[in-house]
Amino acid sequence: MVHRGRTGSVLARALRLLGAFSDRRTTMTLSDLARHSGLPLSTTHRLLADLLEWGAVERDDAGHYRVGLRLWELGSLAPRSQGLRERALPFLEDLSRITGENVQLAVREGRELVFVERIAGTGAVPVLTRVGGRFALTATGVGLVLLAHAPADVCDEVLAGPVRRFTAHTMTDPDVLRAVLADVRACGFAISDRQVTDDALSVAAPVHGRTGRVIAAVSVVVRYGTAPPHALVPLVRNSSRSISHALL
Amino acid sequence: MVHRGRTGSVLARALRLLGAFSDRRTTMTLSDLARHSGLPLSTTHRLLADLLEWGAVERDDAGHYRVGLRLWELGSLAPRSQGLRERALPFLEDLSRITGENVQLAVREGRELVFVERIAGTGAVPVLTRVGGRFALTATGVGLVLLAHAPADVCDEVLAGPVRRFTAHTMTDPDVLRAVLADVRACGFAISDRQVTDDALSVAAPVHGRTGRVIAAVSVVVRYGTAPPHALVPLVRNSSRSISHALL
Repeated sequence: MVHRGRTGSVLARALRLLGAFSDRRTTMTLSDLARHSGLPLSTTHRLLADLLEWGAVERDDAGHYRVGLRLWELGSLAPRSQGLRERALPFLEDLSRITGENVQLAVREGRELVFVERIAGTGAVPVLTRVGGRFALTATGVGLVLLAHAPADVCDEVLAGPVRRFTAHTMTDPDVLRAVLADVRACGFAISDRQVTDDALSVAAPVHGRTGRVIAAVSVVVRYGTAPPHALVPLVRNSSRSISHALL
Repeated sequence: MVHRGRTGSVLARALRLLGAFSDRRTTMTLSDLARHSGLPLSTTHRLLADLLEWGAVERDDAGHYRVGLRLWELGSLAPRSQGLRERALPFLEDLSRITGENVQLAVREGRELVFVERIAGTGAVPVLTRVGGRFALTATGVGLVLLAHAPADVCDEVLAGPVRRFTAHTMTDPDVLRAVLADVRACGFAISDRQVTDDALSVAAPVHGRTGRVIAAVSVVVRYGTAPPHALVPLVRNSSRSISHALL
């Protein structure tokens, strides 16, 4: 029943179409969608009819396509995002209020991380993250925590590179990174010092799920030079432990 | 190419499968999914393979299916949820901090509303809402605001009923509701007094989009008897106006 051509099953093609939406492309015309998904215009048009009917995509006032609210509703049922976020939110808010800084919650997805929540501190240093956005595991505090507790094959793949450099401080040497990851496992926290931008550092700690596995990481991002990072460690660890307990 | 049988196209069936997940069913076995989507077991199994591969669904430690993080990432690109939420969040947090109460942000989706954000106040009255969850337009403050500014045909359909009763205070008479909606349009705010639960009331105001259209509503939910609702009106209106400005 399922037609599998060069471009895969109908469903795989529809998912590819949806995958054409990104941070930089939240609104597209029909031909944009066809181009970015690599599907013929007629196929794109036909798939969009079903997606529109269900509410997976919507048309805005200008007639352009965008991700629909129904898809967001469905996504909000993902236990790894909304469920985690709901339990963690009060602790993240406390941490942001106490420090006045940006607080982040992230989970690993394959060889990258995804930010599940971000609380913006008042007058805090600007950060590059967006809720639902992805980032390299090797650069941020939360990334180092998640990578330190990832399965060995994931860790090997990530360290096999290429490891992206953001600043002069970004660690890219696999041996250096391996040593840092061992430290993170031993100490229970990670510090990313100006590895993403030249003016920020982050302190992160692991969140454990019911089975004891590390399922997320929480961090505070501060402007470089304003606070000694080690002063933040107890606060962040306390917060991540509270979230772990709330998940039991 | 697209097979359209009794159950619709392949894509429509896959979307039906995804639609089987709900608030009460966030984790399901293969046979649960087949039963709740009304699809044959073999079709369910085949569609799940593509959905798993793309990350739209995941399997948990017990091997059960759940909504995948990738779907949540995609949903986070929906301008009507995440974009709105990001702009509104600082104002919602201020409103929650000033009042110490629950603050909600909702949009209309067809004949219901969907909660896009909820900030839980410290020690505030328990509320029935969940981010990503739906609710009737006729009962809550945000619902009355959204219904008051909905197209006439939507309003007619909703008032044609059935209008759900939650408490003895829930308004269900279409003529009474029409008069209330006219008031909401004239005054720029709505009060839902114990219409959802016997111990809570909410005060809501509209958020305007770039074109001037009402695209969302913000509310404060307080325990009945603790504060005169009209005292909250300026705070809520100020917040909704600030969010509207932030969207320009």
